[in-house]
Amino acid sequence: VTSASPMELRLAFIGLGNVARAFARMIDDRRDQLSDGYGLKLRTTAIATGSHGCVLSDGDIDLRAAAACVERGEPLTGLPGVAAISDTSGLIDRCEADVVFETTPLNPTDGEPAATYILNALGRGMNVVTANKGPVAFAYRRLKALAERKRVSFRFEGTVMDGAPVFNLVEYCLPVARVIRFSGVLNSTTNLILAGMESGRTFDECLDEARRLGIAETNADYDIDGWDAAAKAIVLANVLMGADLRPNDVDRAGIRDLDSRETQAAAAAGRPLRLIARAEGSGDGAKIVVGPERVAAASPLGSVRGTSNVLIIETDLMGELVIFETNPGIEQTAYALLSDLIRVHEEAKSRR
Amino acid sequence: VTSASPMELRLAFIGLGNVARAFARMIDDRRDQLSDGYGLKLRTTAIATGSHGCVLSDGDIDLRAAAACVERGEPLTGLPGVAAISDTSGLIDRCEADVVFETTPLNPTDGEPAATYILNALGRGMNVVTANKGPVAFAYRRLKALAERKRVSFRFEGTVMDGAPVFNLVEYCLPVARVIRFSGVLNSTTNLILAGMESGRTFDECLDEARRLGIAETNADYDIDGWDAAAKAIVLANVLMGADLRPNDVDRAGIRDLDSRETQAAAAAGRPLRLIARAEGSGDGAKIVVGPERVAAASPLGSVRGTSNVLIIETDLMGELVIFETNPGIEQTAYALLSDLIRVHEEAKSRR
Repeated sequence: VTSASPMELRLAFIGLGNVARAFARMIDDRRDQLSDGYGLKLRTTAIATGSHGCVLSDGDIDLRAAAACVERGEPLTGLPGVAAISDTSGLIDRCEADVVFETTPLNPTDGEPAATYILNALGRGMNVVTANKGPVAFAYRRLKALAERKRVSFRFEGTVMDGAPVFNLVEYCLPVARVIRFSGVLNSTTNLILAGMESGRTFDECLDEARRLGIAETNADYDIDGWDAAAKAIVLANVLMGADLRPNDVDRAGIRDLDSRETQAAAAAGRPLRLIARAEGSGDGAKIVVGPERVAAASPLGSVRGTSNVLIIETDLMGELVIFETNPGIEQTAYALLSDLIRVHEEAKSRR
Repeated sequence: VTSASPMELRLAFIGLGNVARAFARMIDDRRDQLSDGYGLKLRTTAIATGSHGCVLSDGDIDLRAAAACVERGEPLTGLPGVAAISDTSGLIDRCEADVVFETTPLNPTDGEPAATYILNALGRGMNVVTANKGPVAFAYRRLKALAERKRVSFRFEGTVMDGAPVFNLVEYCLPVARVIRFSGVLNSTTNLILAGMESGRTFDECLDEARRLGIAETNADYDIDGWDAAAKAIVLANVLMGADLRPNDVDRAGIRDLDSRETQAAAAAGRPLRLIARAEGSGDGAKIVVGPERVAAASPLGSVRGTSNVLIIETDLMGELVIFETNPGIEQTAYALLSDLIRVHEEAKSRR
């Protein structure tokens, strides 16, 4: 796959949190492999953050220095060779980049301001990669249509199962086939809480553990009441089944009302409780249900432990396929950005 | 993905058994979708069979008529507009095709004559798709190198897990990442026998059932003694880990010596027996072991039932990913040929 002369892609970062910093270090570590193996040279020209400033550069911003800056709580404006910009919107309007990595925090109500950031970046002809499910759950059709009109890529592999291939898998490895239904365990926090209650701990003890591990959303109600699983199911249904739903369209129940006794009894009977998201296609739409279910222990849904995720996809031509991601962490989500970057590069080459 | 003018690909079939016939009907059913959605027009110019003759055509051989011919036990030479050829080698030398589908029966000793068929087809500049693990287990490097020299595609998605994406998954959805180890339940017959013994039946009763279901190899020793799982592990290690091993290099044990009592006791203790294939990478090589193991019931390896397969891939960048295929049949293997055909078409477009 080596090209004669590498293609240079200029990168912009909207958000430089844990995931983006892990990604920044990943691509810095793999600079030679990306150049020699993929014909891909990277240069960082813009970084926007919520509390460490927004900066542009004509050169190549040192990603390790930028990540270290954020970790020390210092502003990025102190980096060499950068110009300060007042805010993220201004940075998107002025940056000269080929690929924008949007990783701002999730807004579960309407996906903003990320959706507007992405719209503006696509509108200016930049490819966009996001790990943020908000804008995809609330504005997929609009973002996708704009990307097509502008002949750029819009990728979001990390939004549902971290680095485990889901969207790229269906698009590149399941051609011609149609997804007719899916089910899965998509939220780590609730899964960790259910497993903890199975071993006799209380709901609140388990939730505290999820918080300590850093996997619960800032507002954990969003996990516990099934909103996170619902938003992920919406992204899956809208992208893979052609639906056009919003998180409010989901028939949703959380795990708040379950107690340790019920959870232990279900597990002891070989039918543990899991928070399951299910979708059934119908025409161009889908019906989505999220709620706790008793599942067989020795089954893909039942064998999910800890922070692992599982997704069962049923297709017309290929039957049933299960993707299972074991105990994902920040590195796996960062990898989703890397695999999307490679995809953007491939698509850019095929457009030339 | 619609092209302005569809690309025509001329197809040749080496073997027209169950899988090839299911594939033939699949592409015939999807003619419009392949043309409108993928810019792909198909024309069948050659079919070679072991006992129904070998035929060439300047036109388009009717695949449904050919499949019906084989099913009625009639020679293909009776089809309209075809010329008879004496044998498969002669057909490969003379056919004008863009993609050859090789689906002859497995030869577990050396992969022949399929390996030679594929070499000759690649040597003549034709793309090759196979569902036959023999030639890939015994001659992968040679076949791959020839395909690269001739600038054609050599694809074999169906050789290990039927239609479940494994090779396409790693190549297209796990870029930059390196596979460092894998484990899996890759043989359906032994899995069915172990499940049957768990419910109290004898080894022989279970083997008879596998034969009735048509999933046992013609020579079932090949399943029972772990050769099939070993050949699949070799294909995985040689392709995904850069190894250059042969089935004889596998540290191999089968399930012949297990009895119902031992199998039932293991299952009752929550640690059922499964025939597991494992590989551990080391430099450009790999160490491969196939044999029965006790695994946790509520785990991906333990939750495999019936003819289902599972493969756990561990990578450096993306951690652990599990692919699970539920109760595959002939249609799924046929789908592997279809997904490879789409891949060949994409690669042909990118070479133009």
